[in-house]
Amino acid sequence: QIQATSRDGISGIKVVKIPLPPTPSKHQVRVSIKTAGVNFYDLYTCLGLGQNNSFPCALGLEATGVVEDSGQDSGYEVGDRVVVHCPEGGAFSEHVTVDSTHVISLPDSVTFDAAAAITVSYLTAYFALHCAGCLQEHGSVFVHSAAGSVGWAATQLAKQVKGVTVLGTASASKLEAISQNGVDHLISHDQDYLQEVKRLMPDGVSLVLDCLAGQHLAKSQAMLAPFGKVVLLGAKDMILQSGEEVVQTEPVQPFNLIMNNIGVTGLHLNELQKRCPDVFNSAWEEILHLAATSKITPRIHDTYPMAEAAEACRQLRDRLNVGKVILKME
Amino acid sequence: QIQATSRDGISGIKVVKIPLPPTPSKHQVRVSIKTAGVNFYDLYTCLGLGQNNSFPCALGLEATGVVEDSGQDSGYEVGDRVVVHCPEGGAFSEHVTVDSTHVISLPDSVTFDAAAAITVSYLTAYFALHCAGCLQEHGSVFVHSAAGSVGWAATQLAKQVKGVTVLGTASASKLEAISQNGVDHLISHDQDYLQEVKRLMPDGVSLVLDCLAGQHLAKSQAMLAPFGKVVLLGAKDMILQSGEEVVQTEPVQPFNLIMNNIGVTGLHLNELQKRCPDVFNSAWEEILHLAATSKITPRIHDTYPMAEAAEACRQLRDRLNVGKVILKME
Repeated sequence: QIQATSRDGISGIKVVKIPLPPTPSKHQVRVSIKTAGVNFYDLYTCLGLGQNNSFPCALGLEATGVVEDSGQDSGYEVGDRVVVHCPEGGAFSEHVTVDSTHVISLPDSVTFDAAAAITVSYLTAYFALHCAGCLQEHGSVFVHSAAGSVGWAATQLAKQVKGVTVLGTASASKLEAISQNGVDHLISHDQDYLQEVKRLMPDGVSLVLDCLAGQHLAKSQAMLAPFGKVVLLGAKDMILQSGEEVVQTEPVQPFNLIMNNIGVTGLHLNELQKRCPDVFNSAWEEILHLAATSKITPRIHDTYPMAEAAEACRQLRDRLNVGKVILKME
Repeated sequence: QIQATSRDGISGIKVVKIPLPPTPSKHQVRVSIKTAGVNFYDLYTCLGLGQNNSFPCALGLEATGVVEDSGQDSGYEVGDRVVVHCPEGGAFSEHVTVDSTHVISLPDSVTFDAAAAITVSYLTAYFALHCAGCLQEHGSVFVHSAAGSVGWAATQLAKQVKGVTVLGTASASKLEAISQNGVDHLISHDQDYLQEVKRLMPDGVSLVLDCLAGQHLAKSQAMLAPFGKVVLLGAKDMILQSGEEVVQTEPVQPFNLIMNNIGVTGLHLNELQKRCPDVFNSAWEEILHLAATSKITPRIHDTYPMAEAAEACRQLRDRLNVGKVILKME
C-alpha cells in the first residue's frame, strides 16, 4: 500500500507492507487492484491538508480492479471487473475491501487504464456542469486549467451539450492540446484571464468551474452573465479548515450576487457520495456508458508503476500533465 | 403622480400635480395608466432605502394602461393595451412616458386589474424558480411568506412543474388561503420553520426563495438538499447599501457551500431588465400568456383608488394582504 507517512509532502510517500484487507462482510467486496488515478487531493493529503487526515495515511481515491472476494448481498461476483471509489483513501494498494455502494461495474469495452482516469475527474466535471452549474444549451463555460484532468473532462462533457462554448486556460505549451480536446477560446496562463474573457464574451459566461478559489473567486464572479454560476471545486478550501491558510478565500457578498443576478455553488465529491450514494452511482454509470460508447475519451498523460506513486504525484505538483496521471499494478 | 416626498415612510406619500410626461421620442410610448401594482419596494423607497433614491421620488414599479401617444418605431399604436415596467418608479401616475422595451402588449383576455398584479411578482417568482434556482421536476421549494404576492406567484408557477412539492410559511390566519393556492406543507409563522422543514423533508429541499435575508440566510442554506440553491430576492439587502443596517446579512462562507454541495444565487429584477431586456421581455410575454390561458391566476387582495396609495402601502407594511394590492385610476 502507498501511504503518506509524514507531513513532508511527496518525500513522505512510501510503499508500506500491510496485511491483506479483511474478508468482505455483508454488502462488501474485496477488489484486487489493477490501476488507480492520481488526484490533487493526494497531494493535499501528503501535506496534511486533507480532510481530518493524520499520518500514516493511505493514498488514492479511485481505482479499477477485479472482485476477488464478495460478501453476502454485495451484488458482485468474483471475477467482475469494477471501478472503486475510496473517499477515505486506500486506492493505491494491491487490494481494498469496500462497501459495494463504492463500486460500480466496468463495461467490457472500457479498459482498466481508461477507467482509472474517469471516476473522480469526470464525476467532478459532470456534477459541476449539470447539477451544481445547471448548464443549458448554447451556454458558455470557463474552465481553469483545462489541461488538468478535471478541466479535460469538463471540456468533453460540456461539448456534449448543444451549442456550448468552452473557454479554457493552460500554459502556452498546452494550448494546442486543449484546443484539440474542444476548447473554443484558448487563454494562456501568461494572459490576464478576466480581461481576456470579458473581451471574448462581453455579455459574460454562464458557468465558471473554479478549482483555484482564493482571490480567483472574485474574478470568477466578475465574468458571469446574469443567471451565471461559479462552481467551486473545493480542494483548496479544505486547506483553510485545517488551519493552514495556504489559500485565503474571501466570503461571498450577498449584495454582489443580488445586484448581478449571479450565484456561487460548492461541490465536494466525497460529501456528495456520503449523502446521496444513489445520485453519485447513477451519474457514475452514465459516465462509464459514455466512455463505453466513445462519447468521452479520457486522456492519460502518463502511467507509472504503483510503487512510483511519489513520482506520479510530482507530475501533478509540477503541472507537467495534460490529462490524467495513472498508476498501474505490476 | 404619487410621490414619496420625504424619508418619513408612508406619511410622506403625497399626491403631487406634475406636467403631462413628454411626447414620446423614437422608440418610446406614452401610456395612460389604468391600474398599478404595489410592491415592498415602494415601502423601501418611501423610507429612503431604495436604490440611489432622493426626494421627492416617484413611486410605482408596474402599471397597466393604454398607449395614448407613440414615438417613431416604438412598435405600438395608440389604443394598444399594455403593461409597463418602471424600474425607476413612476407607475403611480396618470400618464407615463417610457422606452418601448419597458412595455409589453396585454392579451385581451387578461384584465387590467389582473395584469397590474402580475409583472413584478410573477417575473420575480419565474426567474427565481427557473433561471436562478434551476427547479427540476419532482423538486421541492420552500417559500417564505407564501401569502405575499411573490410567494403567491411562486407557488402557482412551481406547481406548473411536474411533481414539485411546495412548502410555505404564513401567519396562522392565512394558512388556509395558501393551501388552496397549492402549498403542500403549511408552516405557521409561530413555528420554528427550519426545524419543521427538516422534519417534513429530512433529505432537504431543492430550492429556497429567501425574501428575508438577514439571519434567515443561514437557515435557508441549512435546509437545502445537495445541489439545492437559495435564491436571494434582494430587496432587504439594498438597505445595507444605503447605509441603514436594518437587516444585517452575513456573507456566505465558501466552505459551507462546498461541504454541503449547495449554492446561493441572487436575483434583482431591475438590474436584470437593464442588462438583459430580451430575457426579461420574453419571460414577461410567457407569463402573460399563462395568465391569458388561465394557467396562473393572480390573487388581488384589495384595490384602492390611485390617490389612496399610502393606505395601499400600509396594507403591505402591516402584512394584511393575501396576494397583491393594486391601485386603480378613477
